[in-house]
Amino acid sequence: MRFALGIEYDGSKYFGWQRQLKVDSVQAQLEKALSSVANETIKVQCAGRTDTGVHATGQVVHFDTTAIRKDTAWTLGVNVNLPDDIAVRWVQAVDDDFHARFSATARRYRYMIYNHNLRPGILRLGVSHYRGDIDENKMHQAAQFLIGKHDFTSFRALHCQSNTPVRLMHEINVTRQGMYICVDIRANAFLHHMVRNIVGSLLEVGMGRQPIDWLALLLDGKSRKEAAPTAKPNGLYLVDVTYPEPHSLPKLSLGPLFMLD
Amino acid sequence: MRFALGIEYDGSKYFGWQRQLKVDSVQAQLEKALSSVANETIKVQCAGRTDTGVHATGQVVHFDTTAIRKDTAWTLGVNVNLPDDIAVRWVQAVDDDFHARFSATARRYRYMIYNHNLRPGILRLGVSHYRGDIDENKMHQAAQFLIGKHDFTSFRALHCQSNTPVRLMHEINVTRQGMYICVDIRANAFLHHMVRNIVGSLLEVGMGRQPIDWLALLLDGKSRKEAAPTAKPNGLYLVDVTYPEPHSLPKLSLGPLFMLD
Repeated sequence: MRFALGIEYDGSKYFGWQRQLKVDSVQAQLEKALSSVANETIKVQCAGRTDTGVHATGQVVHFDTTAIRKDTAWTLGVNVNLPDDIAVRWVQAVDDDFHARFSATARRYRYMIYNHNLRPGILRLGVSHYRGDIDENKMHQAAQFLIGKHDFTSFRALHCQSNTPVRLMHEINVTRQGMYICVDIRANAFLHHMVRNIVGSLLEVGMGRQPIDWLALLLDGKSRKEAAPTAKPNGLYLVDVTYPEPHSLPKLSLGPLFMLD
Repeated sequence: MRFALGIEYDGSKYFGWQRQLKVDSVQAQLEKALSSVANETIKVQCAGRTDTGVHATGQVVHFDTTAIRKDTAWTLGVNVNLPDDIAVRWVQAVDDDFHARFSATARRYRYMIYNHNLRPGILRLGVSHYRGDIDENKMHQAAQFLIGKHDFTSFRALHCQSNTPVRLMHEINVTRQGMYICVDIRANAFLHHMVRNIVGSLLEVGMGRQPIDWLALLLDGKSRKEAAPTAKPNGLYLVDVTYPEPHSLPKLSLGPLFMLD
């Protein structure tokens, strides 16, 4: 049987999603908990391999097992075996042709900026703290230049291993909620560090150091060197993954936390 | 000189606000950081002494010092000396007759409930997890019986040391935001465990175990034994303190986090 799971995690204490030999990862913790419940070795495939310190409310994984268990074993039972900062949100049996990564047609991230001159005391590693005046409207306008199918070389990490730098950007919305700015970004897929590199450059515009059309220039330039430094990982959340029919999966609120959909 | 400070903290790791001999407290950490910046021993008085595991976005304290420092020393400078889960949000010089506790005319708390059958993976100790169907409208209706000046003995901890059980309840609003329910409660002052005891009983109504007018019966009964158990501390935040004119202090968003005011 193949199952899909919805996973939420606070990535602060993990060296990213992907299992690695000498450091702790979300994948390793999840596979350990699933294997314990299944009483056999379980390997998972995820929709988006998040980096060190990056979080998720809407990560999706799939796994195969011969174990016969009630659904609650894959949710409540696995949660008992997981650390406090990782949780299964839902489970659903899926067809054998469902693949958490390859069936996905879009990923959505939210980047949460805490914009105040003093650092926060709550969720310090769950928001990115930036001081000074930041104009979220300018950031939103600048972001619109990125919508559509483009070569995103300018926002790609140097060590990115993707075959192509072309991605289809569906939507970017930058909104303010009190002292928080949310960059909500949806594309078919993302290059390595792409969200954080885009946010880094949008922040330059929001801080008034670059004009709104700078994002268009950066995109055209196809050079990582021209764009701003990568924004910190702390504020980044994978909030949703889209699968086409007939792969209909449960939908919970995107979050993080008290953010409205 | 007397100064007022706005303080935010994640109380998860502390044995409450109040300084104690053998365990760590928010007050002890703040006094240590202030004393370090002032280069003299600083003692603080707070508006609301929160319990173990309770948080604040809007705690207010005052302290006296002979040290002459720039405002940024009392904010940025103190924050450098504080642990990550405590932060100064603002500072303001105040008159000598200002007292963080005795000048306050109202306190406001928000209690954040995560209502889902599976536990959360993010901010596990910053929300209170309750399973099952919870009707926030019923909770809101039930809460309205508590508005006004009442004897709150039924919602008072047995070891509460207050001289009188009478408090003036200004407002209680229970609202849902996705999987979160927020109980927003404002009174002139609170008895020990009063917010958590009220939330515990409201939850019984929300879960359908008691009728809406149960809160009126509990209030009239003036017996702690009739009411529901104390709700967990995790979801509770002191979000605001009111001071009358002329003590005008800075106002930041209440939070916690992405909650709208």
